[in-house]
Amino acid sequence: MKLLLTYFLIILFLLTSCNKKPPLKESEAVQTSENEFKYSKIIDLTHEFSEETVYWVTAKKFKLDTVFNGHTDKGFFYSAYNFSTAEHGGTHIDAPIHFSENSETVDQIPLKNLIGQAIKIDVSKKAISNPDYQISVEDLTNWETEQQMQIPNGSIVLLQTGFSNFYPNPIKYLGTDQRGEDAVKLLHFPGLSPEASEWLVKNRNIHAIGIDTASIDYGQSQHFGSHVNLMSQNISAFENLTNLNELPNTGFYIVALPMKIKGGSGAPLRIVALLN
Amino acid sequence: MKLLLTYFLIILFLLTSCNKKPPLKESEAVQTSENEFKYSKIIDLTHEFSEETVYWVTAKKFKLDTVFNGHTDKGFFYSAYNFSTAEHGGTHIDAPIHFSENSETVDQIPLKNLIGQAIKIDVSKKAISNPDYQISVEDLTNWETEQQMQIPNGSIVLLQTGFSNFYPNPIKYLGTDQRGEDAVKLLHFPGLSPEASEWLVKNRNIHAIGIDTASIDYGQSQHFGSHVNLMSQNISAFENLTNLNELPNTGFYIVALPMKIKGGSGAPLRIVALLN
Ligand SMILES: [Zn+2]
Ligand SMILES: [Zn+2]
Repeated sequence: MKLLLTYFLIILFLLTSCNKKPPLKESEAVQTSENEFKYSKIIDLTHEFSEETVYWVTAKKFKLDTVFNGHTDKGFFYSAYNFSTAEHGGTHIDAPIHFSENSETVDQIPLKNLIGQAIKIDVSKKAISNPDYQISVEDLTNWETEQQMQIPNGSIVLLQTGFSNFYPNPIKYLGTDQRGEDAVKLLHFPGLSPEASEWLVKNRNIHAIGIDTASIDYGQSQHFGSHVNLMSQNISAFENLTNLNELPNTGFYIVALPMKIKGGSGAPLRIVALLN
Repeated sequence: MKLLLTYFLIILFLLTSCNKKPPLKESEAVQTSENEFKYSKIIDLTHEFSEETVYWVTAKKFKLDTVFNGHTDKGFFYSAYNFSTAEHGGTHIDAPIHFSENSETVDQIPLKNLIGQAIKIDVSKKAISNPDYQISVEDLTNWETEQQMQIPNGSIVLLQTGFSNFYPNPIKYLGTDQRGEDAVKLLHFPGLSPEASEWLVKNRNIHAIGIDTASIDYGQSQHFGSHVNLMSQNISAFENLTNLNELPNTGFYIVALPMKIKGGSGAPLRIVALLN
C-alpha cells in the first residue's frame, strides 16, 4: 500500500507541475514553438499612402515621383521612386513634442510604449452619426464596468468611432473637402474630450492612444486640449487608424512602428494588431 | 507486478505528454500573461533619418523642412515638419518589385513575411577587412553545421558584415564620398553572392533577408544578381540595418514594418528584434 501511495503522489506531482508550466490563455497572442507564433491573425490597422491619403487641410500631401520604372540596358528590371509628405497625414504618429515643448521626439519614443497589450473602446454607436462627438469620461468608465476591469497598466488604448468607414472621402471623413487655413473651422469629426484625456493621464497608466479619425482632438477643437494633456505626459497618439472593427475589446497586442525621423514631431506609422 | 507496471506506464505517459505541451525555450521571446511579454529586450535595428543618413550615390537624400516650431498665438506649443526622401536610403526595405517586374509592391508584402522568427549569420570576421567580400554558399552551410540545424522554414535571415560600425562615414561605409553616376563604380562594401542567394531560394524557404550594408548585392555588383534571385521569388530585402552585433545566432524574433506606400518599390523601414 505504501508503494501505491508513493506512485499516487508522484502522479499527482506530475499532473500539477504539468498544469503550472503553460499559463497561456486562448485569447492571447503567443508564440509556442520555434516555427510558429500562436496568434492566428495579423491585422493591418494602416491606410496606404497614395494621392488619396487624407491630410490635415493645411498640410502638404503625399507625392510619389518616379525615378525609374522599366528594363535597364543591362537587361534587368528596375523600379524606384522618391516621395514627399507632411509628417502628419494618413496613418501616422503624433510624437509628444508635437504639442509639448520638452517631450519626446518621434525617434526618442521608447519602443516598449509602442509594442504591447492593447484594448479597444468602441463608441461608434454614438459617434458615427455625430461628427462633433467627444468621447467622455463616462465612455471610459462604462467600458471598465462592462469589461469588469480597469484599463490595464501599460496598455495601448484604441478608440473606435467608426469614421474609418468614410475614409478617404474628405467631406464625410473630415467634414470638408476645402483646403487651407479657412477650411480649419469647417472640420467636423469625433475625438477624445479634454476631460477624458485628463482623466486618463491622472487615473490610469497608458503607453499610447490611437483613433480612427484625423486627430485625437475632435474637428471643432480650438486649443487641442487632449493633445496637450497626453503629450505633456509623453503619451503618443496614433491617428487615421483603420480596421478597428476587426479587433476584440481586450486580449490583443499592438506593434506600432513609426519611421525613425531624428527630431521629428511625428511620422508615417505602420501599425498592426496580433490576435487569435 | 502488473499493477506496478501499469503505474510505470502512466508515469511515463504523463512525463512525455508534459514535455509535449510547452515547447518553450529560455531563449525564445514569448508572451506569458496578459500584462507582460516574456521577452526582456527590444533591440532597434534601425538607423535614424537625418541629413547624415546614407543614400545610394545617385539617390535623393532625406530632407526635413520646418512647418512650425514654437508657441502659437493661442498659447500652446506646436511643432511640425515636412520631409522628402528616396524610398531607398537609410534603413529601408527593397520590395520585390524593385528588381522583379511582376513581384509584390511594398504595400502588397504579406505581413506574415515581415513578422516572425529570425536567424543571424555573422561573417564579420571575413567581411570587416574586405569591402569586396561576397557571402558564399559555404558561409551559409558552415552556419548550418555550427548551429546543427538547417536555416528554419519561414525564417527571416540577417547577415552581419560588421559594416554598420562604419555608418554613416561614406568613405568607410560605401567606399566613396563622391556622388552621382560616376561614383557607382567606386562603391565597395560586402554583400550576398548571387550563388548564395540562388542556393537559398532553391534549397531553403526564407521569408525575408536583411544586411548591415547599403545593398544585398556587394558594392562592385554590375547585374544585381542577388536582388533578382530573391525578388523574383517575392523575398524582400532589408538594407542598412544596425545593431546586429547585439543579436544571438538563433532564438529571436523580428518585426519589420515598412511605410505602406501604394505601389512603392521600397520604403523607410522600422525594424526591431525581440529577444531574451
Ligand atoms: Zn498628427
Ligand atoms: Zn534598396
